[in-house]
Amino acid sequence: MATPWYFVAVLLTVLTSSQGILTTLSQSDGGYKYDYATVPFLAEVFKLIISGLFLWREMRTSSSAAARITTDWKSVRLFVIPSLIYLIHNNVQFATLTYVDTSTYQIMGNLKIVTTGILFRLFLKRKLSNLQWMAIGLLAVGTTTSQVKGCGEASCDSLFTAPIQGYLLGILSAGLSALAGIYTEFLMKRNNDSLYWQNLQLYTFGSLFNVARLLADDFRLGFEKGPWWQRIFDGYSITTWMVVLNLGSTGLLVSWLMKYADNIVKVYSTSMAMLLTMVASIYLFSFKPTVQLFLGIIICIMSLHMYFAPPQTLVDLPVTNEAHPKILKQVIVEEKTDS
Amino acid sequence: MATPWYFVAVLLTVLTSSQGILTTLSQSDGGYKYDYATVPFLAEVFKLIISGLFLWREMRTSSSAAARITTDWKSVRLFVIPSLIYLIHNNVQFATLTYVDTSTYQIMGNLKIVTTGILFRLFLKRKLSNLQWMAIGLLAVGTTTSQVKGCGEASCDSLFTAPIQGYLLGILSAGLSALAGIYTEFLMKRNNDSLYWQNLQLYTFGSLFNVARLLADDFRLGFEKGPWWQRIFDGYSITTWMVVLNLGSTGLLVSWLMKYADNIVKVYSTSMAMLLTMVASIYLFSFKPTVQLFLGIIICIMSLHMYFAPPQTLVDLPVTNEAHPKILKQVIVEEKTDS
Repeated sequence: MATPWYFVAVLLTVLTSSQGILTTLSQSDGGYKYDYATVPFLAEVFKLIISGLFLWREMRTSSSAAARITTDWKSVRLFVIPSLIYLIHNNVQFATLTYVDTSTYQIMGNLKIVTTGILFRLFLKRKLSNLQWMAIGLLAVGTTTSQVKGCGEASCDSLFTAPIQGYLLGILSAGLSALAGIYTEFLMKRNNDSLYWQNLQLYTFGSLFNVARLLADDFRLGFEKGPWWQRIFDGYSITTWMVVLNLGSTGLLVSWLMKYADNIVKVYSTSMAMLLTMVASIYLFSFKPTVQLFLGIIICIMSLHMYFAPPQTLVDLPVTNEAHPKILKQVIVEEKTDS
Repeated sequence: MATPWYFVAVLLTVLTSSQGILTTLSQSDGGYKYDYATVPFLAEVFKLIISGLFLWREMRTSSSAAARITTDWKSVRLFVIPSLIYLIHNNVQFATLTYVDTSTYQIMGNLKIVTTGILFRLFLKRKLSNLQWMAIGLLAVGTTTSQVKGCGEASCDSLFTAPIQGYLLGILSAGLSALAGIYTEFLMKRNNDSLYWQNLQLYTFGSLFNVARLLADDFRLGFEKGPWWQRIFDGYSITTWMVVLNLGSTGLLVSWLMKYADNIVKVYSTSMAMLLTMVASIYLFSFKPTVQLFLGIIICIMSLHMYFAPPQTLVDLPVTNEAHPKILKQVIVEEKTDS
C-alpha cells in the first residue's frame, strides 16, 4: 500500500470530528426526526457495497496473487466475533448508564485508551517503550482534562459518588471496546487476504447484527410503528444521509488502519477528533472555550509527539559549536561498530 | 556534599507544603492577627543567624581550604541583585493584580515554570533534551490543570477576559520570578565559596530590604500604629512562629539546591508541594476533591519521571526471551567501542 498511514489517520480524524458536528446538525428541535438505529445499519450496508465494488475491481484488474481470498468457513466464522463483542459491549454500556450519569460515563470512556494499550501488549504481543506507555496514559489524561465540567456549568460532575458497580461496569465497557478493536486488528493482520475481502466478511456480519437489532427494537415495541423496513428513511434529510456516508467512510478508514497501521494510531485519531470537535463547536455552536480544553489539547499534542517521534530526537541533548569534537568521536565509534 | 539532592528536594517539598497549611492555621476568623510583613523579615533574620552559626563552625573545624570566602566588594555587591529583583517583582505583582483577578493571577503563576526553563537555557547555558523541555511544559500544564475552577465553585475563571496589560504584566512577573532564581543559582555556583558565606551575604541584603519594606509601610500609614519594631511580635502565636521557622528553613534548603542542584529541581519541588498542599487540604480543611486535581497530579508525576529518569530507560523497548542474541550483540559492540 503506497498511502502512508498518517495520511489515513489525519483523514480519519477530520471525518470522525465532522461526525459529531453532522449528528448535531441532523437534529431538529433538540431531537432526531429519524430513527437513529437505522444510521449504523445503513452505514454497514454502505461499507459492504463499497468493499464489494473494490474487491470486484481488484479481482478483475490485478494478477491472481494480489487479491488473496480465504473462503474456508473456519476463517470466515472468525469475522462474526467483532460484531458479537460490540453486541455485548452495547448491553454493558446500557447497564453502566443505570449506575452512573452520562458525564461520568463520558469521562470513564477515556479508560478505553489505556485498555487498548494493555490489550495491544497482551494479545498482539506488541512492545512499547516506557515513554510510549506514558504517552498513552497522557492521552487518556488529556482527553479527560478537556471534558472536565467547567465553572458555571449546569450539572456538576459526580465522578466520585457513583456506586462501585458503575465503575466496574465502566472498566468492563472500556475493556470490551478495546477488545473489539484489538481482535479486529488481529483478524486483519493474521493473513495476507485482500483488505476488501476481509471487509466484506466483517460488514456482512455487521449488517446482519444491525438487522437483528432493528427487528429486536420492533418486537420490543410490538410493531406499533410497523416493521423497520417500511419506515427506514422516515425523517431523513440531506444531513442524515451525510451522517450515514460519514460513519461508513470512517469505518472503512478504521479497517484500513487495522490492517496497515494499528489500534494505537486509531486511538490517537479518534482522541484528536474529539478535541477538534470541541474546538469546532466553539465556532459553530458558540460553545464557551474553557481553560481545560486548552490544557487538554496541549497534553494530547505532547502525548502524540512522545509516542510517534523518533526516540533519539527526544532524548538527545542539542548539539552546539563546542560539541564538534564529540560528533567526530561519535562518527568514529559508529564506523567501528559498523565493521 | 554527601547529602543527595533528591533528599533535600523531598524535604523542601514537605516543608513548602506545610507552609501553606501552617499559614492557613495561623489565621483566626479568616484574617491575620499579626502583621504578615514581619514574617518574611524574621525568616530572613533566622536564615542569617543559622548561616552565621554554620559558617563559624565550618571555619573553626575544617582545614583552611574547605571554608572558602571571597570578601572582595566586587563579589559581595552581586548578592544585592536577587533582593532587587524580588523588590521589582513585588511591585509588578501588585500592578498585575490591578488588571486580573487572583484566580487568573494564580493560573498565570504557572508560567514561572516555563520561564525558569527558558532562562536556565539562555543565562546558565544548560542544555535540555526535547523530552525535558516537554516535561517542563507538562509540569506547568499539570499544576494549571489542578487549579482549574471546578463545577459549582463560587467565582468563575475569567481567564480569557482580562485586559492585555494584565497578561503582559503576568508574563513579566513570571520572567522576574524566574530571573531571581536563575541569578541566585549563578551566584552560588560562580565560585567555590562556602555555601554559608554566600548565604550570609544573601540574607544580609534580604534582611535589609525587609527592614526597608517595614519602614516604608510605616511611613505610608504615617506611623499611626507606631514604628514596626515596637509591635513586631503583636498577635504572634506558636503557629506564627512555626510559619517563620518553616519559611526560613525552606529558604535555606532552596539555597542548598541552588548550589548543589539547580532551579529545575527547585521548580519540581515547589510544584509538587502545591499539589501536596491541595491533597492535605482535602483531609485538614475538608476541601472537595476534584477530578482536575487528580489529573494534575498524574500529569506532574509523569513530567517528573520524564525529566529525571535515565533517558534510555524511557525509550528502550522491553527485552524479551527472543531478544537474547541482541543483548549479546550489544555487549560485543560495547566492548568494541570501549577499546
